[in-house]
Amino acid sequence: MTDPTALRANGDRLWSRLMDMAQVAPTAAGGSNRQALSDDDADGRALFVEWAEAAGCEVATDGVGNLFAKRPGRNPDAAPLMMGSHLDTQPTGGRFDGVYGVLAGLEVVETLNDHAVETEGPVEVAVWTNEEGSRFARSMMGSGVWAGVMDLDEVRSITDEAGVSVGEELDRLDWAGPLEFGRPVSHYLELHIEQGPILEDSATEIGVVTGVQGLRWYTIRLEGFPAHAGPTPMEGRKDPSRALAEILSAIYAIAGEEAPWARATTAQFRSEPVSPNTVPESITFSLDLRHPDRDVLDGMEQAVRDAIAKACDTHEIGFTIAIDNDSAPITFDGDCVASVQQSVESLGYSYERMVSGAGHDACYIAKLAPTSMIFIPCADGLSHNEAESIEPDEASRGADVLLGAALRLLHL
Amino acid sequence: MTDPTALRANGDRLWSRLMDMAQVAPTAAGGSNRQALSDDDADGRALFVEWAEAAGCEVATDGVGNLFAKRPGRNPDAAPLMMGSHLDTQPTGGRFDGVYGVLAGLEVVETLNDHAVETEGPVEVAVWTNEEGSRFARSMMGSGVWAGVMDLDEVRSITDEAGVSVGEELDRLDWAGPLEFGRPVSHYLELHIEQGPILEDSATEIGVVTGVQGLRWYTIRLEGFPAHAGPTPMEGRKDPSRALAEILSAIYAIAGEEAPWARATTAQFRSEPVSPNTVPESITFSLDLRHPDRDVLDGMEQAVRDAIAKACDTHEIGFTIAIDNDSAPITFDGDCVASVQQSVESLGYSYERMVSGAGHDACYIAKLAPTSMIFIPCADGLSHNEAESIEPDEASRGADVLLGAALRLLHL
Repeated sequence: MTDPTALRANGDRLWSRLMDMAQVAPTAAGGSNRQALSDDDADGRALFVEWAEAAGCEVATDGVGNLFAKRPGRNPDAAPLMMGSHLDTQPTGGRFDGVYGVLAGLEVVETLNDHAVETEGPVEVAVWTNEEGSRFARSMMGSGVWAGVMDLDEVRSITDEAGVSVGEELDRLDWAGPLEFGRPVSHYLELHIEQGPILEDSATEIGVVTGVQGLRWYTIRLEGFPAHAGPTPMEGRKDPSRALAEILSAIYAIAGEEAPWARATTAQFRSEPVSPNTVPESITFSLDLRHPDRDVLDGMEQAVRDAIAKACDTHEIGFTIAIDNDSAPITFDGDCVASVQQSVESLGYSYERMVSGAGHDACYIAKLAPTSMIFIPCADGLSHNEAESIEPDEASRGADVLLGAALRLLHL
Repeated sequence: MTDPTALRANGDRLWSRLMDMAQVAPTAAGGSNRQALSDDDADGRALFVEWAEAAGCEVATDGVGNLFAKRPGRNPDAAPLMMGSHLDTQPTGGRFDGVYGVLAGLEVVETLNDHAVETEGPVEVAVWTNEEGSRFARSMMGSGVWAGVMDLDEVRSITDEAGVSVGEELDRLDWAGPLEFGRPVSHYLELHIEQGPILEDSATEIGVVTGVQGLRWYTIRLEGFPAHAGPTPMEGRKDPSRALAEILSAIYAIAGEEAPWARATTAQFRSEPVSPNTVPESITFSLDLRHPDRDVLDGMEQAVRDAIAKACDTHEIGFTIAIDNDSAPITFDGDCVASVQQSVESLGYSYERMVSGAGHDACYIAKLAPTSMIFIPCADGLSHNEAESIEPDEASRGADVLLGAALRLLHL
């Protein structure tokens, strides 16, 4: 038997498969359009299943269509080590978001086969259903149902813009299978493109992902008093635009104080009435606040609330703050993170410990199984974009790190 | 013959007519809904015509339905002194906006009749078509066509939301008559509620209106780069929200430097994409800048342009600035303003010289005839609102001032 620590993934095979998968529902601009539970998504999965079965895997699904390719181990009762991500894409998606994590998982299986490495428990590659949430508006749907965060019946009733439901598509495609949700998994590893510019900017090869930022979404509504833009003196106005200026400045100052990991994003601006010569009756916008530490996130929220109250008091503006989403920070499993870090150190690649700014299937799997993630750089930090791009060497390095971490967790 | 300077309007008759007119298409909340060129607008005009004809006036219209009630003078060839405003209202309009100016003009005619005052030239009361521009989206339409600012054929082709055109309604109502547009007028006086809080706040009875603020409307578009709210560090973002905060602050500082007459109003905020977790690709908003002095308005515009350029440079944001409307400041005729001021001084009412922040039919008439305006206070500065309110004494004082100014301009 080969020394497992000397194993390397076959970067050419991985790259070739990434390019082959990109030919399934390609877009004119070089991206992919395999929206969840579409025929295109099914075509992508069929190609994956073809490869997985040729590699000796047993393929099965669960009730929400999550697909698992299992390489058996010596002990069929042992919990599997699982790797994976998703094959569905945004409507104008790239070639690597999700796909890379799935095909790198398959590459680990292929490498184990190449070197005839036996494992005690099974090794599985997971393809989670509808991670993107673009066609059916619930992102990380498959992993959410698997982890018990979402209800299957509720999820089946979600419809796309044409009125077709998740349940109808699962039935039509015959994707719902017998595997149990939340069954035991020894460890879960997800390799992904960073979807941000941090690794590229610092010319770092690998991101050792220690957790995921906590995230809160707010809808902030500022309520003024509509008044004619001409006859109404500036002094007596109750103009939400003036409060808005101060609130935006405060939000970005608050994020700056918690640099480099704090994120603040204001978007979805709208105002009423739609008239150029009336002081707005209301201005509404969304705020997305993120930080990997719950206490810091709490502090940022309080500072934002104070700033809103102060600006609105100054300008005699009413306000409401609604919380639309509250996703707690996630700290990944220490053993998983250590295995990734040992893997990258032994390979000699440059690395950075970092938190994920975006949500991934790993966020939900981490609720039930020891989990961590690995990032590789992507050009200009671009993702959810047809121009999404990585280099073959980068892809290969990530697969090597995934392989090394898996072997460590398998005690090989 | 009575000493003309001792004449007073009949406040009770004026108030009674205001209340009678308010019964034509009243709203549940106590306002009026007589949208331009509707049957309700026609009913309001019919009531006015009944009163005018009972007062001995000859009634006729021009091609855009402007209606003129003429009290003949000794010399039928002399240019008339004209007073007036409009009878159409916003959908949820008040009882006094426009109506007060028309019925006060009629009250001057009635008072001349009561005292058997003969005039050299005719005295006319004008009812301009579609001042509000709410049903047919072109405000001050009748006076605009009269003054040659708008083209009749173009105006006739404007349609309401149901697809009915101005031309079709003019024909259906038989409002188009033979009077010439832009015919000679010796002087034009328009009495109006202030539609702002200045007179009320200073407990002043009359506004001697010396002109109308210049107005410019801009659409400002800030162009950033869309990026994922999570993985994208704050530093590298091209976030138009950050430029927006600085631009709004600058705009209000610039208006503050030109207090008390400068006005700045930002509205119609919107942003793309409509996603809470994407740095906006663009933010668009409108800016309404006003000042009575063209040079100051030019300076404000330049200061705003500089502030936008600076903020966008700081945050690496692109921008465009479109001018949607550019209405030059108007300085009313010196003789007309002096007559109003002499009238109010001789009556002993408190007054303030002021500029109008809003547009009025007088703005267009001033292009062809010596013109000025008179304001009275309205409760809380409210207008375009069913709660619009004035007191009978206030209405009466305004009519007295209008009468006195007319008598002076008639050399009586």
